[in-house]
Amino acid sequence: MNKTIDVCFSPALFNLYDSQDSIVVVIDILRATASMCVAFQNGVKSIVPVATVEESLAYRKKGFLVGAERKGEMVEGFDLGNSPFSYMDPIVRNRDIALTTTNGTQAIQTARNAYQIAIGSFLNLDALCQWLITQDRNIILLCSGWKNAFNFEDTLFAGAVVQKLLPFYALTYHRDSALAAMHLYDLAKEDLYGFLEKSSHRKRLEKLQIEDDIVFCLTPNQTDVIPVMVGDAIYNLNVLQSL
Amino acid sequence: MNKTIDVCFSPALFNLYDSQDSIVVVIDILRATASMCVAFQNGVKSIVPVATVEESLAYRKKGFLVGAERKGEMVEGFDLGNSPFSYMDPIVRNRDIALTTTNGTQAIQTARNAYQIAIGSFLNLDALCQWLITQDRNIILLCSGWKNAFNFEDTLFAGAVVQKLLPFYALTYHRDSALAAMHLYDLAKEDLYGFLEKSSHRKRLEKLQIEDDIVFCLTPNQTDVIPVMVGDAIYNLNVLQSL
Repeated sequence: MNKTIDVCFSPALFNLYDSQDSIVVVIDILRATASMCVAFQNGVKSIVPVATVEESLAYRKKGFLVGAERKGEMVEGFDLGNSPFSYMDPIVRNRDIALTTTNGTQAIQTARNAYQIAIGSFLNLDALCQWLITQDRNIILLCSGWKNAFNFEDTLFAGAVVQKLLPFYALTYHRDSALAAMHLYDLAKEDLYGFLEKSSHRKRLEKLQIEDDIVFCLTPNQTDVIPVMVGDAIYNLNVLQSL
Repeated sequence: MNKTIDVCFSPALFNLYDSQDSIVVVIDILRATASMCVAFQNGVKSIVPVATVEESLAYRKKGFLVGAERKGEMVEGFDLGNSPFSYMDPIVRNRDIALTTTNGTQAIQTARNAYQIAIGSFLNLDALCQWLITQDRNIILLCSGWKNAFNFEDTLFAGAVVQKLLPFYALTYHRDSALAAMHLYDLAKEDLYGFLEKSSHRKRLEKLQIEDDIVFCLTPNQTDVIPVMVGDAIYNLNVLQSL
């Protein structure tokens, strides 16, 4: 029997999926899961995803760098926001980071009972897919969405993963979500940036002038890091395996 | 300011939408909302959507015909199931019907606080769209899905409506759902039946041998009835307006 691959369009639908024996890939393309990939590529030791701004700030006393994003912007008084470029600063090397974002860190909480949680973004697309294939586990691709609403960018990434993995996996009950994501990715893949031009998130972020962030977050295969959750924190799997 | 049009992929996401001042079009293409359109075209007086098989049966004592579908099949002991053809029987003329189905009647319950509930299917596509345009109200297209999971057939119909109405309406916060539905409809519209071949519902219904039902439910513009909810029951708007 083949292992299965599923796409979940919103954390609010996640309870329909059987995640206990599955690897759940949490996806927040603009920009939390892209930023996490950049962070680990730049030597971050761990990232603790937390639900609230207050929780994140409290980690400063424990020696953590603290990150917080709300409404697309870094919250005042924090070290880091949600821009992948901020995680390229050499100050992050070997540091532990506490991070709260509007959608991505909430989605991670939603998936906490999964067999394993991994972090996906266009930046680590191929590395992630190659690793997933070797795991011999059912896979659920969890789109963080925007406050539980369906969004394009997370769906397109899920579609890219389904397209790569479908030869090796079976579809389930939720096959329509997986096939829809794949169809939409097929439509968009030649020009992801252009396709997203009318999307809700691009509209929402327009005023923040983060076009460079968006282009960066949509550029595939910039890193081979695979962030995975162990206990309450996310680590770089490549580093864990070399210990 | 333009009125808005939204698509909701699942009753489980409906609480994200502001429905109080909106017309909610409930969509259950295979087959509840198609059957309702057929019923009114064949002279049914009213349909009371109920949640449970027991509730439906209790209406028999009040002189109703009773309908119930579970797992795609008519429940034993009922007058009607979920096949549109069963609603062509002359016995339905001038009758009141109580009906429970796996998804469609549940979605109607979900939308009960809307300004108005209307019933949409490919059978009344053009008539519904023409009526909606004259109403000058925000519109939410609510896909019943399958037990709250995203499904293709309801999404494709929502996409057809969005494609027809978008020139006259604005998109919202939930624009990605509306645009995704429209893109998917564009891919599928030349051969809806073929497109759905791999879908979950087609797979689920395969063993029931209801291919004729499916072809019928995917054939647009067979009727100009617009079923609308008034109080606890659904009526034929054309009949209400002629009273």
